[in-house]
Amino acid sequence: MHQTIIMKGKVSVPEKMQALFLETAQGPLAVRLTDVPVPGPGEVLIKMLAAPVNPSDLARLKNPGGELDLKSYIPGLEGSGTVVAAGKGLMAHLWLGKRVACSSEYPSGGTWAQYMVTRAGLCFPLGRKVSDEQGSMSLVNPLTALAFFEIVRKGRHKAIINNPAASALGRMVELLGDKKGIPVINVVRNQKQADILKGLHSRFILNSSDHSFIADLATLAKALEATILFDSVCNNQLPEMIGSLPSDSSVIIYGNLTGEEYLLTGIRQVISKHITISGFYLGNHARRNGLLKNMIEIMKVSRLLSTDMKIHIRDTFPLSRAQEAVDSYLENMSAGKVLLIPE
Amino acid sequence: MHQTIIMKGKVSVPEKMQALFLETAQGPLAVRLTDVPVPGPGEVLIKMLAAPVNPSDLARLKNPGGELDLKSYIPGLEGSGTVVAAGKGLMAHLWLGKRVACSSEYPSGGTWAQYMVTRAGLCFPLGRKVSDEQGSMSLVNPLTALAFFEIVRKGRHKAIINNPAASALGRMVELLGDKKGIPVINVVRNQKQADILKGLHSRFILNSSDHSFIADLATLAKALEATILFDSVCNNQLPEMIGSLPSDSSVIIYGNLTGEEYLLTGIRQVISKHITISGFYLGNHARRNGLLKNMIEIMKVSRLLSTDMKIHIRDTFPLSRAQEAVDSYLENMSAGKVLLIPE
Repeated sequence: MHQTIIMKGKVSVPEKMQALFLETAQGPLAVRLTDVPVPGPGEVLIKMLAAPVNPSDLARLKNPGGELDLKSYIPGLEGSGTVVAAGKGLMAHLWLGKRVACSSEYPSGGTWAQYMVTRAGLCFPLGRKVSDEQGSMSLVNPLTALAFFEIVRKGRHKAIINNPAASALGRMVELLGDKKGIPVINVVRNQKQADILKGLHSRFILNSSDHSFIADLATLAKALEATILFDSVCNNQLPEMIGSLPSDSSVIIYGNLTGEEYLLTGIRQVISKHITISGFYLGNHARRNGLLKNMIEIMKVSRLLSTDMKIHIRDTFPLSRAQEAVDSYLENMSAGKVLLIPE
Repeated sequence: MHQTIIMKGKVSVPEKMQALFLETAQGPLAVRLTDVPVPGPGEVLIKMLAAPVNPSDLARLKNPGGELDLKSYIPGLEGSGTVVAAGKGLMAHLWLGKRVACSSEYPSGGTWAQYMVTRAGLCFPLGRKVSDEQGSMSLVNPLTALAFFEIVRKGRHKAIINNPAASALGRMVELLGDKKGIPVINVVRNQKQADILKGLHSRFILNSSDHSFIADLATLAKALEATILFDSVCNNQLPEMIGSLPSDSSVIIYGNLTGEEYLLTGIRQVISKHITISGFYLGNHARRNGLLKNMIEIMKVSRLLSTDMKIHIRDTFPLSRAQEAVDSYLENMSAGKVLLIPE
């Protein structure tokens, strides 16, 4: 059933590869041998170089639910690799032989594998100065940050509340806000994180451990008309934070660092202040918006990726130690990224 | 400081009136003597005939917060009365001498008083067949129901989930859905309420006490593409109900019958299914949308008010027994309405 594909002259592609699978819905992750997939029209085959463990990966691993077939599900939303084969189509051939950042398209084709097939439109070439490791993290965060500013633009919000601000994504939101002239109120939880933001020349930094935090947030949000809160912490301060927002504010929940099952919101606030709470999941957003438009924007900000936006990498693991990699990342998510490097 | 106003020939207006005030933020409600207010341009003075205790009144009484000045705050969102004086303006003069349904405009001018000043645009004349009592309840529910269908239209929702369906408002939502050709899934909590809905010829009735309720809701919501839930119950079934909605659904919280302080939502559902949760408060909505447009629609459905939509009145109280009226209503909100009748 192999389709006609064009292989890059010097690269030989094996028939079998190592990929990660969930042994049961509760884990653990384990390497299994499986067929190297074949790119269809508009698709490319990528030999993976590196892939990060992202919070969004963890959220999906934690709750694969009934939607995923564990026999075929390979995790991993983004990574870097070399395009070694292409299906029909101009863009697919354009990427042939190139080192790219890439995002997965199918549940059966994640980045946590030796090879991956994805749409050519979900790849973009990496500059020479960008390492395999940094390049592997260059899609999810920029696309998420850009999506946030699209939401801000559509909702005509004048300023943003950014929690947590010291994460790789949080810092990108601060930098993009600065670039786009939209004030960002950065929420951190200790002085060390505040110093990171000071290093980015952030104007508005609030420490959620301060006694006056909620009052300060209310004052600043009112003064700047910050009517949108992006939050992936979801901790027990959230109801009070929501209560401190101006009327008609939006709250966008894009993650759940505390791992709580439920979101708590003061009902009175939601009703009388007309607060709107929505979830954000990049996969859904990308499907709705089409990635190409975002790709163009990524190109514009890609220079940041090799300079200001360089992300701290704490550790790397081979695929065979994936469960260890995930556990290690979970232990301290703000200490730096953990990458998977296929052998 | 009295402005020039035109008084209706035969009606004499006293200088002082009885009105209800909160003695402290926690209550109780008590009658105080205060000045009869004077209508400004575009405003009318109404001698009140009847005013209901609505859930929205209770929500505001329970949490007057820092926004209200208890020295001047008179509760009561709607009522009926006779227009006895008018400020400058065509519409104000048009209503002079008329019996009207009316909504309050200012925190210092609620319907729970002998007289009230409000905008002429917040009044509409009552038909002869409508009693003072029924007429006093003819704004909040119809405007809320109409606002719901405006939200449904804007969001292009194909069907509605209506909880609780057996309330006066819930029944109006069912009737309007039928009129507008939008299927309504009516959620009730016992067989008696299911029978009320059957009496309205409702096609879709779910009893939340059934073991299969959540599964049935999921099946029906999927089949009808019911992507919007209007909920004022906020009980512990809500997270599961939200979990049973199709992706990209909206949840509109417009009340809080259980009196819980917090809304619980499964975080994973909100993020991965892109659920949006918002509050609805008629006062805010009316300010945003302008009431005149809604008034025209009210006229269209006003025939329902004296026939199908007749609301059961359980008890009436004079202003001097207002706290008793509120307590009585709170004891069993689904047993019928409680009205305040100024002496």
